[in-house]
Amino acid sequence: MKKVGVAILGLGVVGGGTARILIDRKERIKEEYGVEANIVAVLDKFPERVTNLGLSLDILATSIDDICNNPTVDIVVECMGGLEPAKTFLTKALEAGKSIVTSNKEMFAKSWPDLEKAAQKTGAGLYYEATTGGGMPIIRTMTTAMQANNILEIKAIINGTTNYILTRMTEENADYATVLKDAQALGFAERNPVADVEGYDSSYKLSILSTLAFNKRVPADVIFREGITNITADDIKLGKEMGYIVKLLAIAKQINGKIEARVHPVFLPKSHPLASVSNSFNAVFVTGDAVGDIMTYGRGAGALPTGSAIVSDIIYCARQVEHARYSEIFTEITEDELIKNFESEYYVRLTVHDVPGVLADITNVLKKYNISISQIKQDKNNDIIPITFVTQKAHEFDMMNAVKDIEKLDNIIKVENVIRVEE
Amino acid sequence: MKKVGVAILGLGVVGGGTARILIDRKERIKEEYGVEANIVAVLDKFPERVTNLGLSLDILATSIDDICNNPTVDIVVECMGGLEPAKTFLTKALEAGKSIVTSNKEMFAKSWPDLEKAAQKTGAGLYYEATTGGGMPIIRTMTTAMQANNILEIKAIINGTTNYILTRMTEENADYATVLKDAQALGFAERNPVADVEGYDSSYKLSILSTLAFNKRVPADVIFREGITNITADDIKLGKEMGYIVKLLAIAKQINGKIEARVHPVFLPKSHPLASVSNSFNAVFVTGDAVGDIMTYGRGAGALPTGSAIVSDIIYCARQVEHARYSEIFTEITEDELIKNFESEYYVRLTVHDVPGVLADITNVLKKYNISISQIKQDKNNDIIPITFVTQKAHEFDMMNAVKDIEKLDNIIKVENVIRVEE
Repeated sequence: MKKVGVAILGLGVVGGGTARILIDRKERIKEEYGVEANIVAVLDKFPERVTNLGLSLDILATSIDDICNNPTVDIVVECMGGLEPAKTFLTKALEAGKSIVTSNKEMFAKSWPDLEKAAQKTGAGLYYEATTGGGMPIIRTMTTAMQANNILEIKAIINGTTNYILTRMTEENADYATVLKDAQALGFAERNPVADVEGYDSSYKLSILSTLAFNKRVPADVIFREGITNITADDIKLGKEMGYIVKLLAIAKQINGKIEARVHPVFLPKSHPLASVSNSFNAVFVTGDAVGDIMTYGRGAGALPTGSAIVSDIIYCARQVEHARYSEIFTEITEDELIKNFESEYYVRLTVHDVPGVLADITNVLKKYNISISQIKQDKNNDIIPITFVTQKAHEFDMMNAVKDIEKLDNIIKVENVIRVEE
Repeated sequence: MKKVGVAILGLGVVGGGTARILIDRKERIKEEYGVEANIVAVLDKFPERVTNLGLSLDILATSIDDICNNPTVDIVVECMGGLEPAKTFLTKALEAGKSIVTSNKEMFAKSWPDLEKAAQKTGAGLYYEATTGGGMPIIRTMTTAMQANNILEIKAIINGTTNYILTRMTEENADYATVLKDAQALGFAERNPVADVEGYDSSYKLSILSTLAFNKRVPADVIFREGITNITADDIKLGKEMGYIVKLLAIAKQINGKIEARVHPVFLPKSHPLASVSNSFNAVFVTGDAVGDIMTYGRGAGALPTGSAIVSDIIYCARQVEHARYSEIFTEITEDELIKNFESEYYVRLTVHDVPGVLADITNVLKKYNISISQIKQDKNNDIIPITFVTQKAHEFDMMNAVKDIEKLDNIIKVENVIRVEE
């Protein structure tokens, strides 16, 4: 029997869920996994959170140093959120030789190399399954089931809020603003939704996944990022007619030793396995050169799903002989290794004056940039008409330049939206 | 650096793929995982398979004893298939203290307790990720990412051949016999397809998954089993109209301490994540009481996907302090703990003579068994008409009795098919 002492920093939703699982399933975990995990310290402002769990106030620590100096603490679980003091606390824990388990994606994405450095000194371990996709086991899949693989591609739905909003917009043919308001009322979106709807949250998680996949640090701020706020009910309706579903995807690819990483709305064919990932569920589609396509799917948030991932990290950590070391993440991706001019297909929706030659003008611009069209829809009822087309594969920079040129054409009223299309 | 010596029994498709990966990615695995895995012994009738891999004939063993007595062998990988001599060879290996890695589902499902007994004696490890779902990491997901969970339910597509056949029948509106013949010609189905199309293969894999999930041995022969040979193009077409996709599912549930386990064709709503698992892909949907729904998806067969799973087992095994012990699997599920009279919804397709009262007769039978109808379709063009209905949740035994009674009614020509419907 392996006995481990656990300290929990922050007994909020996720920390509380973690404690609940550790307490309720203690015997089961002992029996099945040979690990006895005891909560021996807690750092939280509210003592009643400790007593509400049926734990003794004796374990309430007064500071992080208290915890670092406590020889009964083996693993420090951080569920505080925010950059600081989380980073400082975890650095101190690692320096004191305590392994850490965290669900804090922004902090971890931004501080992984610093935390890894601290861990290297003492041999302590870093566990972060809960940072990416809540209860969905993507980190364990990549580190314990795909070791033989060179990872070629990641396509992921890793933000539950935006997936919930886009699912409801799709099902109800409703506008972004209406659904956002409702999602906020129901607690599926924050009062300030920027981190989610502008794709920041997805970019932190993609930073973690692509760093792990490509053995080179891909910081969040080099990731191309576009949010979902411009998606309209019209786009969703037109997409449906063409067989597409809209999703906010996090995409990373390794192409000839270079890497592209981007977060933006995507039209996916309805038959794609990611297309049926609805509401607040998350899913990651990974392509390895030996295993081919693998997908994991699960609840991206919530006290028990995230708590389940944290407890699985605690048990996994307790059973390791030696913790994994990632010295590769100290090498940051260079400008040269980053593909900014990536390739995609594009859906473009315009409103134009219905005069002869307008379509010829548009196709001439596309021809100039060597872009071919794969399908086109044009309404014929009014003076002002919508034109929607989908291109074949094109380069991002060419497409953006073509769109600028199209905007300047006579008789073009507006380029309403451009949405990338993935297969 | 952990150095392990690997012996491979059988250098066919899967064994050859495994060897290829171990050789080609040796340096990468050393660097990233700190494991140096060397192929130090091979058992195979064809020496050219050894030389074709660029390996020396010195490693060709003459017998399993040769391998068991070889002190440089740490892990024995079995890719021979078949019950014997695979089981005897692996038992000898375990008794000699060698950990084993296998992709042989039928042998493993039938022999797990015996192999586990042999392993308990010496402390060697059993690894079997490749038995279930090829490259799809379902065993690792259940053992390293859901430890905190009580598993409530498993729904799985774990046979690539039948999923390929049903996908093509669905896409082409083709009959079973036509698609089977083509699948055989293309190598997606065996010349003797019984093990796949009658659900035996799925039942072996479900035996492994449910034993792991419920901590009690669920042998393959207690699993309810029905194959796909009765599915017709008509059923698929009618299902589509009602929003369903047909899949061969392996289902296991834990309900109030009792267990049900069954393999049969199922109509799933198109929006279910398993509905978009097409062709030879596999997927497992698991529900844990903390994490909620998790799904893994991947290629269920093939040299490199299965080889990738085997190599991941080798690396994972090499990094363990202590191998997992499953003494629970020595307790077999009892008759009392097995739910045979499970609940489901049912799709029933009949042909009847179009005379007044025929529908009343049918609904009276259903009423007798307390079964409610949720939708009904009836054609009105001919003397002989099809009637199709879907029930609300009912018990299996009631439904089967109701079908028998319906068959005996006047004016019923035939009960064409009964397909269970899952949400």
